[in-house]
Amino acid sequence: MSLIVKKFGGSSVADAGKVRNVARIVTDEYKEGNSVVVILSAQGDTTDDLIAKANEINPKASRREMDMLLANGEQISISLCAMAIEALGFPVISLTGWQAGMTTDTNHGSARIKKIDTARLRDELDKKNIVIIAGFQGINKYDDVTTLGRGGSDTTAVAIAAALGADLCQIYTDVDGVYTGDPRLVQGALKLDEITYDEMLELASLGAQILHNRSVELAKRYHVPLEVLSSFSGKKGTIVKEVTTVESMQVSGVARDNNVARVSLTNLPDVPGIAFKTFSLLSQQKINVDIILQSIGRGDTKDISFTVTKNLVTPARELLERYRDTLGYEEMIISEDVSKLSIVGSGMVNNPGVASKMFEALFKAGVNIQMISTSEIKVSVLIDKAQSDKAVAAVHEMFF
Amino acid sequence: MSLIVKKFGGSSVADAGKVRNVARIVTDEYKEGNSVVVILSAQGDTTDDLIAKANEINPKASRREMDMLLANGEQISISLCAMAIEALGFPVISLTGWQAGMTTDTNHGSARIKKIDTARLRDELDKKNIVIIAGFQGINKYDDVTTLGRGGSDTTAVAIAAALGADLCQIYTDVDGVYTGDPRLVQGALKLDEITYDEMLELASLGAQILHNRSVELAKRYHVPLEVLSSFSGKKGTIVKEVTTVESMQVSGVARDNNVARVSLTNLPDVPGIAFKTFSLLSQQKINVDIILQSIGRGDTKDISFTVTKNLVTPARELLERYRDTLGYEEMIISEDVSKLSIVGSGMVNNPGVASKMFEALFKAGVNIQMISTSEIKVSVLIDKAQSDKAVAAVHEMFF
Repeated sequence: MSLIVKKFGGSSVADAGKVRNVARIVTDEYKEGNSVVVILSAQGDTTDDLIAKANEINPKASRREMDMLLANGEQISISLCAMAIEALGFPVISLTGWQAGMTTDTNHGSARIKKIDTARLRDELDKKNIVIIAGFQGINKYDDVTTLGRGGSDTTAVAIAAALGADLCQIYTDVDGVYTGDPRLVQGALKLDEITYDEMLELASLGAQILHNRSVELAKRYHVPLEVLSSFSGKKGTIVKEVTTVESMQVSGVARDNNVARVSLTNLPDVPGIAFKTFSLLSQQKINVDIILQSIGRGDTKDISFTVTKNLVTPARELLERYRDTLGYEEMIISEDVSKLSIVGSGMVNNPGVASKMFEALFKAGVNIQMISTSEIKVSVLIDKAQSDKAVAAVHEMFF
Repeated sequence: MSLIVKKFGGSSVADAGKVRNVARIVTDEYKEGNSVVVILSAQGDTTDDLIAKANEINPKASRREMDMLLANGEQISISLCAMAIEALGFPVISLTGWQAGMTTDTNHGSARIKKIDTARLRDELDKKNIVIIAGFQGINKYDDVTTLGRGGSDTTAVAIAAALGADLCQIYTDVDGVYTGDPRLVQGALKLDEITYDEMLELASLGAQILHNRSVELAKRYHVPLEVLSSFSGKKGTIVKEVTTVESMQVSGVARDNNVARVSLTNLPDVPGIAFKTFSLLSQQKINVDIILQSIGRGDTKDISFTVTKNLVTPARELLERYRDTLGYEEMIISEDVSKLSIVGSGMVNNPGVASKMFEALFKAGVNIQMISTSEIKVSVLIDKAQSDKAVAAVHEMFF
């Protein structure tokens, strides 16, 4: 008898038929004699609909009230899924984040999990209940509802799996595993049977949109075996673990992220500490930056560019405008027409030619590179969004 | 400085414009220097939409999961209303039932309030926050979400007002007070400036659909002054209190309730205890019956008829079928094409001719009476639903 955690995303529970499909997958597992914990996201577009309702009333609503609003999406999913399982005749109970003992910090909108009190979870499992938990949400020390931010349901799933010592954490999506490239975009993309946490981590943080990066970090830290699989195909998916048994490919995937914007500050004074000042300001406001590029000083000024996810453009702009005099830049230029393209592979570290092969593919496809960032197992470039489809195809063709 | 509790129903928060209207009413009160607590229902048809979603998946869903689902309606309302108040620049916080300290019994779907822990409420009021509370919901001793049943938001409002010792509890609706008849139905219906708790109680329990009867009982028990008023007109409403200062009218209102069904059991054995058996069975299953009529025994059998609200027809039918042999009836006949018509007035007790005046009006209008029930301050009759419009008009004309 194993303890299995299964997470289903919004598209897997989008309507009554799909909720029934989830109920079937879950009860099939339960019938095998396993304990099953299910983490759900909000149905289909529910979260977007709720955000639209909020924007109509107050586009600058506090994050605390946004969390109060958004948490309903998952609470609706879990109760409906529990009802579908009741209809199949199995014992089941749905639990919100706070009922499942999920305590977070007070950072509304992108809270981090602080502690999971598993008493009730274990109690319900002991009663042989299938337990359905609302992903994406928790409560803070004031008993206020918090959310973990987009994709937070993956994090919930892995955190619950870690806290319960689950044997496997399965992440169900609408693709049947991790591919070397986005199968909707790249002809001949290959499904991987296995991938390491580190590779998955890079893919996740690069917008492959398969797993939330925090969830992969957490899985790595607590050694939670993950499986990424389809809620529709019934096929084996991709296992994510510490070390893959097959020899690492040089490059295991190509990822593209359109949810980025480039912010450039021009003609900053070329004095020590200016980069520190800029980025410490941003980090105090919890504005995470990704690729950073600083020009070489010319005379007494220099430029700093960085990328942020699109939802952080407005807070970043407002913050930097407020500190314009302190920082002393001449102009702030923001572009949302950019795309981040990345290749990932743990084999890369021993193959120094990988980055230049990528640049060659882009050059041949006529794609201009705006910024470059590299790590041991990935290379990312920022390019014009209009060219990103062609760029993904060209890079994929070069490596696979 | 007063403490005012304001409750707004679903039609008062149905869309963004109406939520803003509520925010304006609330902040106007706050600007007067008063502490304001707001209780909200779910927006417009949200509850019905959620019920439809549940029925699509499992028409026999457990009440526990239905409560988990339905509680979202109010949680959405309170966060949106808080956002609207934030937009006007006032300090505000929304609280779910459990955050507001609302503990109920475990009777999912129609839970009763057991205790209100006001610590957080008082804390938020001390911080000068406007407090927005989700009506209709609480948690039980297992930390499971419960709902108080239809109209439960009125009960929440009065209970919170009682627990906080509020100076006034205002119930906002889409009519501007309590009328002698349904103004949409009865020409020349008159608005009452004042009405006693007892009269209101009878009107509420008779389907006048202005105030939930539990809320009026609670208001009477804890001496909470109520006002029923419109969220749109801005006019003074109707005050509900212990003793009205104007002389009681003979009849203060005519009410009609279409949400009833008649259940008849025919040819029961005419032996002692048969009525007791029947109704104790029903009450054990928490099926509340209203008007009861037992025929005089003819030979060795008799008939028993009673009315229930429509949502209890199915459980009542299933229960009585299961115990058919025990009870020994011949046939069960259920009719949903009935309507309950009532007149209410504390002046009635001293005017024995009131009931006969009502019967006269119905006779002249050609309306057949199926069942009759009377109390000190009301007379109710069960009639054919198709005749109920004409019956209400005829009775109203007789008295006003």
